[in-house]
Amino acid sequence: MKVERVKGMRDFSSEDMLIRDFILDTIRNGFEIFGFEPLETPVLEYWSTLSAKGTGGSEILNESYVFKDKGNREIGLRYDLTVPLARFVAMNPNLPLPFKRYQVDKVWRYSDIAKGRLREFYQADIDIVGSNNILADAEIISCAIFVLKKLKFNEFLVRLNNRKILSAILKYSGVDKNKEIEVLRTIDKLDKIKEQGVRDELKVKISEDAVEKIFDIINIDGTKEEVLQKTEKLVGKFPDGKNGIEELKQLLNYLTLFGYDTKIKIDLSLARGLDYYTGPIFEISTAENIGSIAGGGRYDNMIGIFLGREIPATGISLGIERIIEVIKDKKIFSFEKTKIRVLVANANKSMLNEALKIAKILRGRNIPTIVDLRERNLSKQLEFADTLGIPFVIIVGQKGLKEGKVTLRDMKTGEQKEVKILEIEKICDIY
Amino acid sequence: MKVERVKGMRDFSSEDMLIRDFILDTIRNGFEIFGFEPLETPVLEYWSTLSAKGTGGSEILNESYVFKDKGNREIGLRYDLTVPLARFVAMNPNLPLPFKRYQVDKVWRYSDIAKGRLREFYQADIDIVGSNNILADAEIISCAIFVLKKLKFNEFLVRLNNRKILSAILKYSGVDKNKEIEVLRTIDKLDKIKEQGVRDELKVKISEDAVEKIFDIINIDGTKEEVLQKTEKLVGKFPDGKNGIEELKQLLNYLTLFGYDTKIKIDLSLARGLDYYTGPIFEISTAENIGSIAGGGRYDNMIGIFLGREIPATGISLGIERIIEVIKDKKIFSFEKTKIRVLVANANKSMLNEALKIAKILRGRNIPTIVDLRERNLSKQLEFADTLGIPFVIIVGQKGLKEGKVTLRDMKTGEQKEVKILEIEKICDIY
Repeated sequence: MKVERVKGMRDFSSEDMLIRDFILDTIRNGFEIFGFEPLETPVLEYWSTLSAKGTGGSEILNESYVFKDKGNREIGLRYDLTVPLARFVAMNPNLPLPFKRYQVDKVWRYSDIAKGRLREFYQADIDIVGSNNILADAEIISCAIFVLKKLKFNEFLVRLNNRKILSAILKYSGVDKNKEIEVLRTIDKLDKIKEQGVRDELKVKISEDAVEKIFDIINIDGTKEEVLQKTEKLVGKFPDGKNGIEELKQLLNYLTLFGYDTKIKIDLSLARGLDYYTGPIFEISTAENIGSIAGGGRYDNMIGIFLGREIPATGISLGIERIIEVIKDKKIFSFEKTKIRVLVANANKSMLNEALKIAKILRGRNIPTIVDLRERNLSKQLEFADTLGIPFVIIVGQKGLKEGKVTLRDMKTGEQKEVKILEIEKICDIY
Repeated sequence: MKVERVKGMRDFSSEDMLIRDFILDTIRNGFEIFGFEPLETPVLEYWSTLSAKGTGGSEILNESYVFKDKGNREIGLRYDLTVPLARFVAMNPNLPLPFKRYQVDKVWRYSDIAKGRLREFYQADIDIVGSNNILADAEIISCAIFVLKKLKFNEFLVRLNNRKILSAILKYSGVDKNKEIEVLRTIDKLDKIKEQGVRDELKVKISEDAVEKIFDIINIDGTKEEVLQKTEKLVGKFPDGKNGIEELKQLLNYLTLFGYDTKIKIDLSLARGLDYYTGPIFEISTAENIGSIAGGGRYDNMIGIFLGREIPATGISLGIERIIEVIKDKKIFSFEKTKIRVLVANANKSMLNEALKIAKILRGRNIPTIVDLRERNLSKQLEFADTLGIPFVIIVGQKGLKEGKVTLRDMKTGEQKEVKILEIEKICDIY
């Protein structure tokens, strides 16, 4: 029969896993240093949860895996880690707040693989639930930068905006409140379809005059101070505009306090695709020029939809797959091909028992060790060690054994030396 | 709206995760010491793969999650980690062999939650692909015991049998070859429905005489030598019987060589539920008397079904959920409530900036640290640290600050001392 992996999904070989585990562990560790704690939620959620008003929005729901289980319940694979978090908080209303959690896990979206998009991929999320203080947003951004620095990314650009300001801009431009989400979703496509594409798409939805007014504002460029000043002049008279600008100012102050050196740009054209944002929104890109590698924002209403009373929240999601690609390309870290340190080879089959004894000593000292399992001759065993990239081979032979010795071969240099079996444990400490 | 988690599935809070991560990491680490390397496969597989002849069998397929994706392809959530491994090997026919891989990951089965069964749970699998040597089976069993010892399980009972012997027993009893799988699946229920239950179920399928003959043999009890001898006498004349007994003898020898002290019992009634086994089968239970916590066996045909040429394989799966339950109950390991080490509290709001600076120093030294994000007064901040189980609080106050000092409070003892801010870094090394 023809065997295939499901389209848009991947297997990770042990060599891939060495790289991925290092990166994911570094990220988890960085999150923990900022006081985020792990949460794990199921892969499956009820569709009523995933599709609740105020969650991901129609675009992402169209890309979701949804089906009926044998009990005829509508179930979906999670498309992000934020909706499950909101569901968890709603089910645990007595959690001590603020609740700072991280989750590094898989999500699924049935997206266009012709465009090189994956259908199963990792996200790494941190969220702070239960603080309406903009300090929490600053901590989220700072933690993301802290983690990226640990992965040896250096130059960052943090782009900031605020959904309240965007609301005010749309009001100023005469856009109806009920078209807001739709218009923002189109503006979010700026990177993909460029200004002309967005204009064309908007013209179908709102007046040409409104489109002009929107672009007049979101194209405002300049220093942070200049952009703030111009924005204030134009939309500061709307309550949303005033509050959004105030939040932006606070966020800028707090980011300075956290003191992670970064370029910060106020980018009024930053919209973020998801429906649920209510305040500050942000994206981080790096000098490597691969577009945004982290994005998030404040969503003060989503948990309330599940819980019935509002609990504010803010968070960011790191685009793990992009991060891994860049780290592989940059070749700053060097990765081994295998974790196996030693192959205990037998010079001939009668030595197998002795080889197993030596393997047992090494394993007892936590040294990753293998023995031959295919009754191969010595040169085939050495060849196998070489193929896997195992750095050391211990050769157990009849002659040496009589003197209580084995041969230790360094597979990189080809050097060999005789070692007393009684001293094997000492060798373990060296390598 | 009413929010619910999907039935049969769980959320793991940070406290749960501290325990689970420790256990899963210990298991992964133990696997690596035996030279197993990580592999990660997608959660989803084509149904044609999951349901191929010679994979899990009808019982497990009936419990599987299966649906059509938006491209109308039949897709399922994996019900084990062995079938995806076989699919991976078939797609990578040039892998250096033997291929020793581990995977610790989630699987899904739509089973009866009224009986306390989970629908999403972890398995921890090791498999050796590409060795028909019974040494590989012995290594699999030894590695499982090695890992369980690291988790402080002590007394083990390894029950051994062989599918070839079972085949010979059925032949001896006059059971038709095409009823073999069905009969074995019934025998596998011995623990659940006891001998009478199995007899009743078998009588519908085969003659009473056959049932008697089967039970005469599978109930053979005694030392390993006695059981081997009696079995040989009864079914040694069939090629399958002869080969199976020979494999059993080899396995016993190799297990002695690996030298992990365990009680070993030949249990001819051990059948294992899955269709794909072809040789040695085994289950491990512990003194904690919770039934089997690991089980597996040799499956020399499954990869061949996908690949078109046979590649032998053997493996074991650890029942993580049971293992975790026992470890929790035994209370041998002690777990903290949180990884957060320090809350940097501010005596009043004006001290927040200084608190952030100190948090930054601690985080720079990789000490998991949090600050107040809810503008709480000092006693509320201390209360919060206490609730989360954070061991240390650093209090930043106006008076101390003038002298360049902060207060360090040990939350367990309540002791406080003044510490110079310049020496904060030194404190980090102590705790």
